[in-house]
Amino acid sequence: MGIGKNINRVDALSKVKGTTKYTEDLIPQNALIAKILHSKIANGIVKDVDVSEALKIEGVLKIVTCLEVPDVDFSTAGHPYSLDPSHADIKDRKLLNKRVRHYGDDVAVVVAVDSIAAQKGLEAIKVTYEEYKPKINIYGNYEVGEPIHKLYPDDVMATMNFYLNEDKERFNKYKIVEELLKTNNFKGNMPDSNLPMKKYEYILPIVQHAHIENIVCFAYMDGNRHIIYSATQVPQVVRRIVSEALEISIGEVQVIKPYIGGGFGNKQDIIYEPLAMYLSKLMGGACISMVSTREETFVNSRTRHGMKITTMVNTEEGKMRMRNRAINLVSNQGAYSTHGHAIAANAITNGFHLYSGSGLQVGTSTSIYSNLPSAAAMRAYGTPQICFAVESQMDDYAKEKGFDPIEFRLENLVKVGAIEPFDTFPIHTNGLDDCIKKGKELIDWDEKKIQYEEFNKNSKVFKKGIGIALFAYKTGIYPITVETSACRMVLNQDGSLQVQVGAIEIGQGSDTVFCQMTSEILSIPEDKINMVSCHDTDISPFDPGAYASRQTYICGGAVKKTAEILKEKILNKAAIMLDFDYDDMDLIDEYIISKSRSEKLESLEKVVLYSMYSKHSTEHLTAEATYTGLNNAFAYGACFADVCVDVPLGKIDIKKMYSIHDSGKIINPRLAEAQVHGAVAMGVGYAIGEEMLFDQVTGKPLNNNFLDYKIPTSMDIPEIEVAFIETYEPSGPFGNKALGEPPIIAPAPAIRNAVLFATGVSINSLPLNPEKLVSAFKEANLIDEE
Amino acid sequence: MGIGKNINRVDALSKVKGTTKYTEDLIPQNALIAKILHSKIANGIVKDVDVSEALKIEGVLKIVTCLEVPDVDFSTAGHPYSLDPSHADIKDRKLLNKRVRHYGDDVAVVVAVDSIAAQKGLEAIKVTYEEYKPKINIYGNYEVGEPIHKLYPDDVMATMNFYLNEDKERFNKYKIVEELLKTNNFKGNMPDSNLPMKKYEYILPIVQHAHIENIVCFAYMDGNRHIIYSATQVPQVVRRIVSEALEISIGEVQVIKPYIGGGFGNKQDIIYEPLAMYLSKLMGGACISMVSTREETFVNSRTRHGMKITTMVNTEEGKMRMRNRAINLVSNQGAYSTHGHAIAANAITNGFHLYSGSGLQVGTSTSIYSNLPSAAAMRAYGTPQICFAVESQMDDYAKEKGFDPIEFRLENLVKVGAIEPFDTFPIHTNGLDDCIKKGKELIDWDEKKIQYEEFNKNSKVFKKGIGIALFAYKTGIYPITVETSACRMVLNQDGSLQVQVGAIEIGQGSDTVFCQMTSEILSIPEDKINMVSCHDTDISPFDPGAYASRQTYICGGAVKKTAEILKEKILNKAAIMLDFDYDDMDLIDEYIISKSRSEKLESLEKVVLYSMYSKHSTEHLTAEATYTGLNNAFAYGACFADVCVDVPLGKIDIKKMYSIHDSGKIINPRLAEAQVHGAVAMGVGYAIGEEMLFDQVTGKPLNNNFLDYKIPTSMDIPEIEVAFIETYEPSGPFGNKALGEPPIIAPAPAIRNAVLFATGVSINSLPLNPEKLVSAFKEANLIDEE
Repeated sequence: MGIGKNINRVDALSKVKGTTKYTEDLIPQNALIAKILHSKIANGIVKDVDVSEALKIEGVLKIVTCLEVPDVDFSTAGHPYSLDPSHADIKDRKLLNKRVRHYGDDVAVVVAVDSIAAQKGLEAIKVTYEEYKPKINIYGNYEVGEPIHKLYPDDVMATMNFYLNEDKERFNKYKIVEELLKTNNFKGNMPDSNLPMKKYEYILPIVQHAHIENIVCFAYMDGNRHIIYSATQVPQVVRRIVSEALEISIGEVQVIKPYIGGGFGNKQDIIYEPLAMYLSKLMGGACISMVSTREETFVNSRTRHGMKITTMVNTEEGKMRMRNRAINLVSNQGAYSTHGHAIAANAITNGFHLYSGSGLQVGTSTSIYSNLPSAAAMRAYGTPQICFAVESQMDDYAKEKGFDPIEFRLENLVKVGAIEPFDTFPIHTNGLDDCIKKGKELIDWDEKKIQYEEFNKNSKVFKKGIGIALFAYKTGIYPITVETSACRMVLNQDGSLQVQVGAIEIGQGSDTVFCQMTSEILSIPEDKINMVSCHDTDISPFDPGAYASRQTYICGGAVKKTAEILKEKILNKAAIMLDFDYDDMDLIDEYIISKSRSEKLESLEKVVLYSMYSKHSTEHLTAEATYTGLNNAFAYGACFADVCVDVPLGKIDIKKMYSIHDSGKIINPRLAEAQVHGAVAMGVGYAIGEEMLFDQVTGKPLNNNFLDYKIPTSMDIPEIEVAFIETYEPSGPFGNKALGEPPIIAPAPAIRNAVLFATGVSINSLPLNPEKLVSAFKEANLIDEE
Repeated sequence: MGIGKNINRVDALSKVKGTTKYTEDLIPQNALIAKILHSKIANGIVKDVDVSEALKIEGVLKIVTCLEVPDVDFSTAGHPYSLDPSHADIKDRKLLNKRVRHYGDDVAVVVAVDSIAAQKGLEAIKVTYEEYKPKINIYGNYEVGEPIHKLYPDDVMATMNFYLNEDKERFNKYKIVEELLKTNNFKGNMPDSNLPMKKYEYILPIVQHAHIENIVCFAYMDGNRHIIYSATQVPQVVRRIVSEALEISIGEVQVIKPYIGGGFGNKQDIIYEPLAMYLSKLMGGACISMVSTREETFVNSRTRHGMKITTMVNTEEGKMRMRNRAINLVSNQGAYSTHGHAIAANAITNGFHLYSGSGLQVGTSTSIYSNLPSAAAMRAYGTPQICFAVESQMDDYAKEKGFDPIEFRLENLVKVGAIEPFDTFPIHTNGLDDCIKKGKELIDWDEKKIQYEEFNKNSKVFKKGIGIALFAYKTGIYPITVETSACRMVLNQDGSLQVQVGAIEIGQGSDTVFCQMTSEILSIPEDKINMVSCHDTDISPFDPGAYASRQTYICGGAVKKTAEILKEKILNKAAIMLDFDYDDMDLIDEYIISKSRSEKLESLEKVVLYSMYSKHSTEHLTAEATYTGLNNAFAYGACFADVCVDVPLGKIDIKKMYSIHDSGKIINPRLAEAQVHGAVAMGVGYAIGEEMLFDQVTGKPLNNNFLDYKIPTSMDIPEIEVAFIETYEPSGPFGNKALGEPPIIAPAPAIRNAVLFATGVSINSLPLNPEKLVSAFKEANLIDEE
């Protein structure tokens, strides 16, 4: 019972028995079906939509086209609202889009009595386009031509440049830096060093979240109320954005989030909720369901940003200590802005979170629109990309300099007591040294290093390798934006409890750890605590949503605060009931006890009954509180890979992965381990197989389905060993820090570095698929050309 | 905006557009159907149930019989839980009943994939009974034989006897009183008076609530949670009783009450919720729906008690002042105890609430089981019965003595300052004098009296009459049981508000008046206040349920308290935001204002945004409070009827009804008037047409459907004029008192007294149908025998 114990997930039984109700399970019987007509071009303008034939089809009730939707632009980012207008997200999307910006963009929508009629309707619509040349490869020299968004004539959504360890005056003197910042082009050396800098370039693919449950929502009206059920990570943001998109007041909108079948950040964006609600209004309040297919989820929800990252580094003369570092990051935003530059910004700053050079550090980043699906939040928010670049570069540079890659890392690691350079919060806990030590032990690094080097000397076909990659990840988003979370608790007559958290359970297990936290404070066993998992913006305590691994850290604070208030209320009531000294009372094992006498005074159940039914003074014992997060903390860790490469086949056999985490105090080790397993599996997919492919001329998606887009199956997942280095983070409610996202960050570079160890070949892009490997091995003469 | 205004019902649009979701609308698509096998005898024991043939029917999944249900007895009364074990309701029912106690009792249940299979299953079940002689007419000399409930060998569930205006010692000396209390048989005169007492006897029929929505519930399990949707007035009591019946803890049960299509007290009883939940558990948590037919609702839910009421009265010598009164009430409980003696007790005490004699007053009451459907709560909880007796007796005695019936009433009316004799609360407000005055004015009593008397002299076929009846009705149930109610409010970013009340909207309009109360305190207009109408025992603020006309009085207290707390929080937050003196601030028209400067400082909306999103200190502005009712108050009123009797046809043409109410301050006059209209219509049905009929030998119901059981249609409802005498009741949150039930109490005796005026014939039972009237008129020689 309580913190640190391996209780089962609170929703385990419901999910195993199949009784869990997801959004699609709740669609009413008489709901109308809305289906989207997606553009068959990637870049252009809709000149005309002919719906005359489509409207003749039986069962087709209504067709709305991009030529007639309200002229209201809205953002789709699941960011919390900010009082600072300059923090607002870019509003660049309408309910349907006349200006087609990617292949599959939303051009029209058919409302029909069933999905067959809707599909027939779609097929009968004729669209006339004015077509522009699609911009697919942003790293190539493409013509800007007609800008994708009028306000951004160069297709550059945003740039962000910074330097560290240098005062502004001195810094500005260096012409080369001005030039560097202007061109995003690293050619020379850094200004304060005569040492030449080594330059590396890494390319990261566009991938998809591949959550089990597709994008789905339905909307209807009850009287004047606008009601939306959505599988979303951010119901409160959906509420706000629907109100903005439909120009109605936020209080008129009610968003309900049932159980969710995975989100991974994709459901931190608003997709079809505004359109579904708009259609319901058009149809007199009828229920409109919008269930995306897998093909649509790939193209019409969001993707992980493809990036091209250039890094430069040098070290102090004769030392392993890094002196100067520069990172340039170009992020492929795709068609719409969604989260804006936030993800590229999180990535570029994360590039300076693990290691600090002693001299000037420069970061530059650019987000560029393209005619591809829109990229937005995905687990770890840009850091898997930057981590691949930084950790690959660490190995590449170490190899070049003859450093031991682990020693090189240890020499340059950030330390406890350091101040985070961008958000300027102090680092209280850092278990990285121990993570590395533990990982080395588990993988038997020193022994294997010798063994594998020996083996590789004598083996041409198979090459064995071990690799390491480190990561740092912030917990929550303070101080960039507000961190707020609320919680409410309701005691029952039998001493059991309901807990409503603002935080969103999306399958990650947050309800379970909140249940444990509650139990820890109130002594009520977890099986008597009922987590109210469905979020309803009308009545749930407020919380902006499930993202940034903030739940246990921020909402955990709300849970703790609320439980403490409730405990006070219980003891207060017991003091009246028992006419006993409040200060001498405590709540232990569901009993009110006397601290001085160490004896039970009365059961919690009896106190609740007294409170609810005592004729002369009743109180329904509930508590509610909002917690404001005013801290941040790094979760750290090290990932190790043990691989065997089949060189001629270009196939990586991952023998075992090791994921070692400092996430502070672990609330539920077994659940935490499962979380790491899932993320490492996702990281393995990122490393070896996943990539969204597009026709480079037309922009047409080539593999937007699970037949052609290969996520690893259980057969592809190696054994995964997990270890936790438990620090006690003082800013966390129970000493805890982020864990949900961190384990996906480092598997890819760890595997890539293991391949480097095995073959001596630096592969500088993902995925590490056979085609790429064979080609690289041929170039390195590991495979004889036939 | 606010109190006293005629806003539309908050659910008007939803109901008019048909978007309101009732329980049956929410049954999931894959729900299994459970149908009950009802006994074909009224009294006996099930010896054997043969289900072998039924189980062979395709689609029949499970049959449970009364021979195999758990041996757990439970009560079905929707009473709040009491800490006093002696207050517990009688537990006399199992999930299905081997001991058959009325025709149609629940003997077995079939679970099937659809209703056709379920029906076929029912028809294939063979039941063997041991049959006893049914006890139908409890006023006749029936043989007790086998008692209906073992613990009550004489079939007497309970008796309650009391006297007023007499000290115990002196009282006990009178042998005659002992005798009287023992036998419930008034033969002699009262002990302190030599004046002979007049004796009258009145008989009230069994009637049904006839709400639009039948009895309906469905139940399923999600993991370990027991979830029930039910059209109930008492979701919190359903939760408790299901936990008792199934021997699970109360916190494991979740009861959800959607919108309700009328209850009138019938849904203050637990009907099939425990059985539905039991079946779901048996079926692995599958959803079990139980939708009663109208025929079942008549027989298997509850009825209004039939009663036989004997009254005795005398007056001080030569005066209209009443001296002694005695009332004996025999209540026909039917098969099961449900609310126990509470309704008979409420009736008998109500017999002494309007008038107090100067001498000894004696009340005796008895509840007797019979082999008829179970009687329980129905609008006004026994008082329509007692009012018919008392108000008929007032006219009968006045006629005998030559008193003016109104003068006689006025002479004996209870006054402000009096103490309620049973519950001993002071009467602060009493507008009866003004109600009578207003009603006399409206009906033009004095003029019509003369006119009609004149008319009747010359008319043999048509006779005109006016009649009056008064009533008194308590508000809520304090101090008999606990009065507690909670409320929660949640502010939105646009300054709009959600309100969750524990109180149950059952169509009576409570949500609308709570909305107005909230608006009154917080200045937020009603169209920006969203009443959360669906009650969910997991998260709704606690309240025992919708009964006893307690909602605006008790829950209104919770709404007021909560709104005041929220207002304080808002002003507090604004004081911080604006750095302004809290004591100089107020909330007017959705603006924070300076009281001293009489100027607007900031909008409520801005304060909410500041509170929710200010980075350094956030608070989700909500408030929650429990109100304990420690008062009671009488609502009073006078009902007038203007009729024309077609003597040969025995047909009463009700020309107009007048219903005049002192219900304290009226929150929404138009809604209140509609409430009165509905109740007077129901009272007209009680007066002239409604009666549940049973075969006097077999106990078989004869008219359990709307073809044979005649409720008045819109064509039968006379014009109804409503007036309110607004007192300001200091114990009500806004000066208000009961209104939901009172208007049904007096129409029947008012009509009956008008018939007495018209014809000179006292009809001493209901309904006043042509058969009965013709027979009485013949006896009175108003109709010549052919």
